Amino acid sequence: MPHIPLRPNFFLRRRYLPFSVLLQPKFIHAPSFLASELDISSPTFMIYGSNTGVGKTLVSTGIATSVLSASEPSHCVYVKPVQTGFPDDSDSRFVYRKVLEIFRTGKPRGIFASNRVLKASREVLRAATELTEDNIGEGLGFSGPCHYEETVMGNGFGEEKGYKLICLTLYGWKEAVSPHLAVEREGMAVDDSLLREELRSWLSVSIGGQKDEKVAAWRLVETAGGVASPGPSGSLQCDLYRPFRLPVILVGDGHLGGISATISAYESLKVRGYDIVAIVLEGRGLHNEISLLSYLRNGVPVCVLPKFPEEPSNNLIDWFCESSKVFSSLQEVMLSYHRKRTQRLHDMREKAVDIFWWPFTQHKFVSMDGVTVIDSRCGENFAIHKMRSNKEMLVSQFDACASWWTQGPDAVMQSELAREMGYSAARYGHVMFPENVYEPSLQCAEMLLEGVGKGWASRVFFSDNGSTAVEIALKMALRKFSLDHGLMNFENENSSGAFEIRVLALRGSYHGDTLGAMEAQAPTSYTGFLQHPWYSGKGLFLEPPTVLVSMEIWNLSIPDCFESDNLRKDDLHFCSYGELLSRDRDSSAIALCYSSYISNKLLEFAASNPQNYIGALIIEPVIHGSGGMHMIDPLFQRMLVGECRNRRIPVVFDEVFSGFWRLGHESAAELLGCLPDIACFGKLMTGGILPLAATLATEAVFNAFGGDSKLVALLHGHSFSAHAMGCAAAAKSIQWFKDPSTNINIEHGEGRLIELWDMKLVRRISSFLAVKRVVALGTLIAIELHAKGTDLGYASLEATSLVQQLREDGVYMRPLGNVIYLMCGPCTSPLFCNQQLVKVYRRISEFSEAWI
Amino acid sequence: MPHIPLRPNFFLRRRYLPFSVLLQPKFIHAPSFLASELDISSPTFMIYGSNTGVGKTLVSTGIATSVLSASEPSHCVYVKPVQTGFPDDSDSRFVYRKVLEIFRTGKPRGIFASNRVLKASREVLRAATELTEDNIGEGLGFSGPCHYEETVMGNGFGEEKGYKLICLTLYGWKEAVSPHLAVEREGMAVDDSLLREELRSWLSVSIGGQKDEKVAAWRLVETAGGVASPGPSGSLQCDLYRPFRLPVILVGDGHLGGISATISAYESLKVRGYDIVAIVLEGRGLHNEISLLSYLRNGVPVCVLPKFPEEPSNNLIDWFCESSKVFSSLQEVMLSYHRKRTQRLHDMREKAVDIFWWPFTQHKFVSMDGVTVIDSRCGENFAIHKMRSNKEMLVSQFDACASWWTQGPDAVMQSELAREMGYSAARYGHVMFPENVYEPSLQCAEMLLEGVGKGWASRVFFSDNGSTAVEIALKMALRKFSLDHGLMNFENENSSGAFEIRVLALRGSYHGDTLGAMEAQAPTSYTGFLQHPWYSGKGLFLEPPTVLVSMEIWNLSIPDCFESDNLRKDDLHFCSYGELLSRDRDSSAIALCYSSYISNKLLEFAASNPQNYIGALIIEPVIHGSGGMHMIDPLFQRMLVGECRNRRIPVVFDEVFSGFWRLGHESAAELLGCLPDIACFGKLMTGGILPLAATLATEAVFNAFGGDSKLVALLHGHSFSAHAMGCAAAAKSIQWFKDPSTNINIEHGEGRLIELWDMKLVRRISSFLAVKRVVALGTLIAIELHAKGTDLGYASLEATSLVQQLREDGVYMRPLGNVIYLMCGPCTSPLFCNQQLVKVYRRISEFSEAWI
Repeated sequence: MPHIPLRPNFFLRRRYLPFSVLLQPKFIHAPSFLASELDISSPTFMIYGSNTGVGKTLVSTGIATSVLSASEPSHCVYVKPVQTGFPDDSDSRFVYRKVLEIFRTGKPRGIFASNRVLKASREVLRAATELTEDNIGEGLGFSGPCHYEETVMGNGFGEEKGYKLICLTLYGWKEAVSPHLAVEREGMAVDDSLLREELRSWLSVSIGGQKDEKVAAWRLVETAGGVASPGPSGSLQCDLYRPFRLPVILVGDGHLGGISATISAYESLKVRGYDIVAIVLEGRGLHNEISLLSYLRNGVPVCVLPKFPEEPSNNLIDWFCESSKVFSSLQEVMLSYHRKRTQRLHDMREKAVDIFWWPFTQHKFVSMDGVTVIDSRCGENFAIHKMRSNKEMLVSQFDACASWWTQGPDAVMQSELAREMGYSAARYGHVMFPENVYEPSLQCAEMLLEGVGKGWASRVFFSDNGSTAVEIALKMALRKFSLDHGLMNFENENSSGAFEIRVLALRGSYHGDTLGAMEAQAPTSYTGFLQHPWYSGKGLFLEPPTVLVSMEIWNLSIPDCFESDNLRKDDLHFCSYGELLSRDRDSSAIALCYSSYISNKLLEFAASNPQNYIGALIIEPVIHGSGGMHMIDPLFQRMLVGECRNRRIPVVFDEVFSGFWRLGHESAAELLGCLPDIACFGKLMTGGILPLAATLATEAVFNAFGGDSKLVALLHGHSFSAHAMGCAAAAKSIQWFKDPSTNINIEHGEGRLIELWDMKLVRRISSFLAVKRVVALGTLIAIELHAKGTDLGYASLEATSLVQQLREDGVYMRPLGNVIYLMCGPCTSPLFCNQQLVKVYRRISEFSEAWI
Repeated sequence: MPHIPLRPNFFLRRRYLPFSVLLQPKFIHAPSFLASELDISSPTFMIYGSNTGVGKTLVSTGIATSVLSASEPSHCVYVKPVQTGFPDDSDSRFVYRKVLEIFRTGKPRGIFASNRVLKASREVLRAATELTEDNIGEGLGFSGPCHYEETVMGNGFGEEKGYKLICLTLYGWKEAVSPHLAVEREGMAVDDSLLREELRSWLSVSIGGQKDEKVAAWRLVETAGGVASPGPSGSLQCDLYRPFRLPVILVGDGHLGGISATISAYESLKVRGYDIVAIVLEGRGLHNEISLLSYLRNGVPVCVLPKFPEEPSNNLIDWFCESSKVFSSLQEVMLSYHRKRTQRLHDMREKAVDIFWWPFTQHKFVSMDGVTVIDSRCGENFAIHKMRSNKEMLVSQFDACASWWTQGPDAVMQSELAREMGYSAARYGHVMFPENVYEPSLQCAEMLLEGVGKGWASRVFFSDNGSTAVEIALKMALRKFSLDHGLMNFENENSSGAFEIRVLALRGSYHGDTLGAMEAQAPTSYTGFLQHPWYSGKGLFLEPPTVLVSMEIWNLSIPDCFESDNLRKDDLHFCSYGELLSRDRDSSAIALCYSSYISNKLLEFAASNPQNYIGALIIEPVIHGSGGMHMIDPLFQRMLVGECRNRRIPVVFDEVFSGFWRLGHESAAELLGCLPDIACFGKLMTGGILPLAATLATEAVFNAFGGDSKLVALLHGHSFSAHAMGCAAAAKSIQWFKDPSTNINIEHGEGRLIELWDMKLVRRISSFLAVKRVVALGTLIAIELHAKGTDLGYASLEATSLVQQLREDGVYMRPLGNVIYLMCGPCTSPLFCNQQLVKVYRRISEFSEAWI
């Protein structure tokens, strides 16, 4: 059985540039640093074939002819990014010549046509010396690697008048094999991103003269081979061109077996997020179109072309004449699609403002322009719709808030997850969980226990989101506490409210928006009567000491309520994060200070609430996310856990935000160096593609629900408990993040991430005067700006201008008050991270100057 | 542009048989009434081709030879369900003859081989009269429609000894076209379910003699054409054979363009839930296998065969000899896959019991045998793993609890949803919602407002499940009430608990398991200290009057606390459900009785709780689901809504269970004949494939959150708010359910479902002595059994034996205490529904006899 090493994938090839290099002007102004934009004002389509040899170029030629000869004609740009078998085969030459021939025999019209080849392999060049006039063009020469020919047709006009047909081949190789093989044999490797950049620039080129500005220019991109044929780098073409997500004309197959080939090609495009505008195929008497329309439920038009002439080198003019009606109705379909799409992109903002009720949003503050229309996402980037100088643009923006901290996939992983979702929906849809087992639920549970639950957890309880996972955790913890402290028999007594069980939690921590989870957070403006009339705050809330980088140094900030008089200045500053994590600190003066604060608080509580118990500890390990990305001193959290253990109070870690390498480790518990009894996970668990949450628990906690009655069991559940698609996404994502062969950011043997943000750059940012503090950990970097005047916290507008500028730079940011942050995925390349960080560096540098 | 009427699909062709017919013995004992079972003890595989002509039959022959000649040989059954071009082409004849030839030239071994064709079209028969010995077989005749030939090879043994090769063609057509065209031209239409039934029976046939029982018999099923080529009915083969979900050997394509064709075929299988065990392809010097392995990340083995001989009619023996190593390693891969799969199916139960924490489950009561291993679902049915007389079986069971009331799709819809999920994940993954808009979120919101929100709602707030949707609804309602009743300024005052706002709700209703939703339900054993120490019951809970069918009559049951002395007997009985819904009842004596009960309760509350307000009404319209499938008198709920309107108390409908045709109407509000201010939806909304919930509200409710501060906005949200896949699934599902062209159960013009359960049969069930009451409405039929002795309600085990029997009949049921129920999807065929109902009828009939 052959087992072949994986071809290095373009997505996996990553370089790591130091920030000093990145700050050089050539990098800052490199295209990848600007938001990359695609002009979609004109009808622009991708021609894909369900196989090789199904007539893609005939279809391109037919469409181009139709566009140029319509009653309201347009210019036409035809691009063949990749051509093999060149120059014997040249699809752009074919289109160029055939269109001219058709116009010569048909209605005469002013046309300027050109055909050029931009780059050719050394084999092509070597052979070019032997080329005769005859096989390269109509009397126009082959100049260096490039081949250029042009024709002006019609009476008395130059390039400025008439309609233009511009045909282009970007890269040509000599051998008639798949492009990736041609590269292997002839050289001229082309990076995917480079190829896309070139294609993008040709799609954006303006071709109308001044008078012609209102004439639309159609743009057709013809791929090579079938939809999933490899491009020059080996990436499949349907993946290679996916970031553009151009609408597709799929050339189907009219032969025996063609129904299957066409449907499968259609599905490969579909599960990569493409929209297929129409299917065109040769009619060969088998009526494949009937089966196709039935499959498509008439949702996509199918155009049938007359049978191709037997000998393709024949003069095809008759065939094109015969086909002209089909092409003109196809052109109508395409145009109408283009207009509808554009119209919809325009209407969406208004409709959204009209009918959505966005969470956490004061609608009064949302202007129509402030609404972002997201056409798609590809890995870490959104493609958003914008108008720029009257043009319709799709602009790429890095999703720097990771869509509320959920996102993990890069483009390759997203594509794999998409197929996994199709598979899982087809195999299971959703099937119910209690007393049942099915592969994804079991696989996901096994991976959780071997990963984030390793060494302590033995049970997995599934739910839908972080908030429900926390409510379940609290029910578990309070039951365990009640059992351990002999409160189980007081049930009847307690219906009169004889005592109350509360939780121990930290101020500034947040555990979700449902009431039970809200009760575990300290009172804020989120928990007042205005927001939830039933909130009462069932906790003892402690003030935590925090850690921050400011002026290039790690500093500890201890709240006033601590007895910190005995601490030396040295205790409060650290050279590195490693120093902060060191277990040596457990016996330091700070540890004593923490321990006495905690004990005193617990004693005070007991004294003033004799009827009440502390029944659980709940913390967000290391980082308080929603609370403003504050880093809590790990020593303090570790001591808190220790104090609770001593008192047999169950410990809950809310890792909904911190889990799955968000902070560099699979579980943030690793950073704390201690283990919980119960922990909650969500967000990134499914790769961020779907809602799913899990509450993990020890066997001792589980056993607290065993008994002779169903009524003792944990009577909590949601309809979609352990839904198959969510579990499948989680199993796939955790595996993907964990495996060094798919995630090159994983340190071999260590299982944690390498540093994704250049620490030198982070320190430099921390030294700007406008910057109050920086936190950089794993996939997260957060920067708090100094407030001018009163600090309004979450309601602050300090960061507004900065955020606007960064959005223009292609970074989609949402601040938490005056805290801005970037969040990448566990497998995002450090190069990409640093490119984004440099943008932030530049803007904060300007902002800081203005600030002074 | 051709627009062709849809070919009637086998799934859409439905008949409606009256129950009297269904109760006839021939129906009761028809195969479709028994749980359909597939024996997977032996290695059983499907051979699919990435296109026509890629060598499927060569591969089948190679595997069969390898199986029969292995060091531990096995029998081999080869089935070609559909053959066109017959008898000139006959793949089963090819396999039969080539295997014999190979054995003749190679190592001699005892073999009994046969080949038969079961049915042939009239064109085949007509031509058969002209057949000569030469072109049909080795001296064995063509008998009637069937063709049979056999050979015994080796020394001194008969059929009982040696290894058997049994080759079969189920159906043969003469013309060499796609099967669906052959049917059109030659007749012999074959229904998909019939074809599957025949295939299933041949896959289950036992072929070993007594001595040979331990010899496994491999089974190979070779499809026709490509993976998505149509079968005889026009259904694509990958859909047609999907209910078996046999592991697949995919024969790939080694030609230029073959990478694309193979990957696309692979993906078509994947997004239908198939597992592909290996890809086999002809090596043609292009090394397509390298690209394939890279794409597959080495997850699926790729076997490369020597180049096929140029002239296929050649004697191929040399080629087979050359290929034998490839086939024997392929066979190893297949065998190891088979063993691993079987082993995993066995291990899953134990692992599940070991690491899962199932919701609502007392684990102590779950025996290992009680755990159901679900291999897959196809439409309304699970395929579950069972052992039967030492054989591994996959048994089909109707998911009668609709997986906690979530499920809607039939097999066709599930397949379409799966592709939609792949598309949506590839296009969007998940993108964040606030201040953004993307197509699925907008489309879903539009469809909700045009459907369930029509005439009242203008805003959509998305969340993750019914429980969160209810918490959000309560926050909305309480804010609106506070604003309308001048309580907004009391915020500071109320931090001292000066007053409390409660909800009005009905006893027995249920709104979710998170604390806020729990607070809106009356105290039960679910809400006690044992389950949630923080529950306090923030409601005024009324007793509702219920409706039930018993002894064939609709009866009203009014709680004792009502002043019902004035009611006549006639007021309490109804001939039909329509009568019950009539608005004439609004002015009846019962209406007066209801109204005085409600007013008195509200007055009592105000008198005894002077500091408290009733700030919202929350009800489950028409049916209390979890409370035991009780139907509430719609008149009572309508009057309740009216009374609250009069007092400016916002009205919330919890339609998480009742929405989207679950009760026959798109919204259950239509049944009540009144509208809410706020309503919650979930479960069936996504077709039941994914968690997603929505809270709809009027503009007046929305406006209660407008203001000059973000802190006045609704500060509640979940990470996956309006996640793209959920919204896409919802938009697709609602459209599918609503459209008569996809859902034949929709009454044209009415938008509601036809009757799915035969009402005569329902009445007959209601007349059994063991039956206390029946509720049948829309997709639901619930049957409450009389309790023997004390009624234990939810903890009752009354139904246990009945449920066990029905599971044996292929109905997967979970009782709610002594209430059993069936729940189909909005597009499930009434024929299927009645088949299931007849099973229930039969079992309850027996149960009732025993009960007396």
